[in-house]
Formats: sequence, structure tokens, C-alpha cells
Amino acid sequence: MDYYSSQITRLMEELSKLPGVGNKSAQRLAFHIINMPQEQVDSLASAITEAKANIRYCKECWTLTDQELCPICSSDRRDHKTIMVVENTRDLAAYEKTGKYDGVYHVLHGAISPMLGIGPNDIRLKELMQRLQGDVKEVIIATNSSLEGETTAMYISKLVKPTGIRVTRIASGVPVGGDLEYIDEVTLSRALEGRIPL
Amino acid sequence: MDYYSSQITRLMEELSKLPGVGNKSAQRLAFHIINMPQEQVDSLASAITEAKANIRYCKECWTLTDQELCPICSSDRRDHKTIMVVENTRDLAAYEKTGKYDGVYHVLHGAISPMLGIGPNDIRLKELMQRLQGDVKEVIIATNSSLEGETTAMYISKLVKPTGIRVTRIASGVPVGGDLEYIDEVTLSRALEGRIPL
Repeated sequence: MDYYSSQITRLMEELSKLPGVGNKSAQRLAFHIINMPQEQVDSLASAITEAKANIRYCKECWTLTDQELCPICSSDRRDHKTIMVVENTRDLAAYEKTGKYDGVYHVLHGAISPMLGIGPNDIRLKELMQRLQGDVKEVIIATNSSLEGETTAMYISKLVKPTGIRVTRIASGVPVGGDLEYIDEVTLSRALEGRIPL
Repeated sequence: MDYYSSQITRLMEELSKLPGVGNKSAQRLAFHIINMPQEQVDSLASAITEAKANIRYCKECWTLTDQELCPICSSDRRDHKTIMVVENTRDLAAYEKTGKYDGVYHVLHGAISPMLGIGPNDIRLKELMQRLQGDVKEVIIATNSSLEGETTAMYISKLVKPTGIRVTRIASGVPVGGDLEYIDEVTLSRALEGRIPL
């Protein structure tokens, strides 16, 4: 592609390594970046470098943060006896956005997947079990409703049950606003099994 | 969003300013970047800064390049008497990829659009007319087949005709592999008008 300058080509190559960015989008993004004001370009580049440089794992819940203890784990307005187990920091963020949960989290950074060769030792399960030696009342398993998420949920519940700590799983069912007609059978069966008295 | 660290939030904000990157993609990209190896992060950040720092317009055809004269304008294997007029550098690249064109280009950086308030003086038309004072045999107008592209093509042809230089427009018609059933009526009529003897 020598009809572009080598810098444009290099930028397009770097951008196309990002997930969901194909050659066409990389090209569009590259030209957009070149046409952005200088300060915005500097700001983008420094945001990338600084995020990478300053991010680490919370030593308690293993979420991505920039302090030793994340804002949630260091808050005294949260219930530290209830731990919600999630697959990653984005899932944590999704629950935080609801504003309906005041416990703390545990971020596994993955889910058990025999297909992908990800076993219990490849996710932060050992760290979860260590936390359960403290004063914990309930473990809410909020892994995804996928094969891997369900496998992980089953595995965790088997590990936690002997400790006598309450283990729960977030409900699966019809999404709010969902039209029954377009919902798959598995979800519909789950919604039926999980029905609650009105 | 104080459940993310401020660096992650800042990175997500910067990324979501890019075209086609919404909040969800920005989040996914941000986490991907944080998990990339350090050298890949540095490489991405430097590609952004360096592309912005080194890119300028070719003084002849106004494409984006890193030299005074772009590789095409400085090549003696190209026919400098044939100028293809395109809206932007991506369109130039699209024609270069065909490998079927050995003339030079002129990049307008836009198209005339009364709707968006873009007039003939807002694109590199004056620069094109200056080039036509040299030894030019043909101007091929390859602006997009959109309302703006067609308007620009008409405008340019009116400007160029009095100079006696040949003006042509790339053909519009049914795309190769296109199924007639799914092609709009305007394209079909154009394809009919532009029919060629076999």
C-alpha cells in the first residue's frame, strides 16, 4: 500500500489489530485521526499510554483499577459480607449501573471453558475461596448465561456450599421489554422454571 | 462511572470520540488495550502521534502524504497528462488497488454540497484549475455517485470544457456480481443509458 504514506499505513495496521476493527474501519479511523486537532490526537495517545501504565488489579476483588484497593472495596457504604462473582470488569460495571446492588464483587477474569482449555486454575477462583475465609454471608454468582458461565456457576456453587455460606445465582428469564415471540426456547423454559408467585 | 478507574474512563471517553465507536465499543476497546502487551500499546500510541505529526498534503495532487510530493506525483512511470479527480485519499487508494490506472490524481477533500454549506471554494478546485494550465490531456472525474458527487462532477466539467481539455466521468451501472433484482431503479436506468455495443 505505498500509495499511502508509511505513517498512515502503519497507523492503519496498528488500528486493525484492535478487536472489531477491520481494514476498512482502520482506514476510516486513521484518516479521522489525521484530521483531528493536534490536542485531541495528543489526548488520545496519552490516554492509551496512561491507562496501560496505571492500571492494576484491586488486591481484594481483582477488578481493574488504579489504586491498591478499588473504590468499591474501599467504600464503607458497601456491604462487604455479600460478594457478587462476575466474569470481568465490564460485567461489574453493568451491575453498578443498575444502582441496585450495594455489596462487593469478585472478578474472575474469565470463565471455565474446557473447549478453550480454560480450567478453574486459570481464573481468580483460588482468590475467591481465600476471601470466603473472612466474614461472608452470601455469594451471588453473576457469571454469564452461556455454557461457560453456567459451568463456572455450578463449579463455584459446589466449592462454596461446604463452607455453609449462602450461594445464589442471578435469575435467568425473559428480558424486560422482550417479546416472547422472539425469545429462544431455552430462555422461555428457564423463565417458566423460575416463575414466582404474584 | 466511578466504578472504573479514572484512567479507564478517560480512555473510553477518548475512544468514543472516534467515528463509529459507541460507548460499548469504546469500553471493549479500552479493556482490550489495557490487556495488550506493553510494546503493542506503545506502538499504537506512537503510530497515532507520528501519523499526525508527519502527514501533510502533496503540493501537486493534495493527497495526504509524508513528503513534499507524494509517491504517485513523483513517479516517472505515471502518465502526468491524465488527472483523475477524487473526493478524498481513500478513493484514490481504492483506484490504486485496481492497478488499472496509471495517470495521476487530484484530491478535492470533499464535494460540493449546498445542504452542508460546502461550496466550490471549500474544496481543492482552484488548485485543480491551476494544474490544468500545464500539459494535461484528460480530466477523469471520479467523484462519488451521490448527489454531492454528481453536482461536483457537473461543476468541474463546466469549468474544464472551455479549456479544450477532454473531460470524462467514470461509468455508473450495475456493480459486478450485482443481482439486478436488488439494484435500485436509478442505477438500473443509468446502466441502460450507459449501455455499450458488444
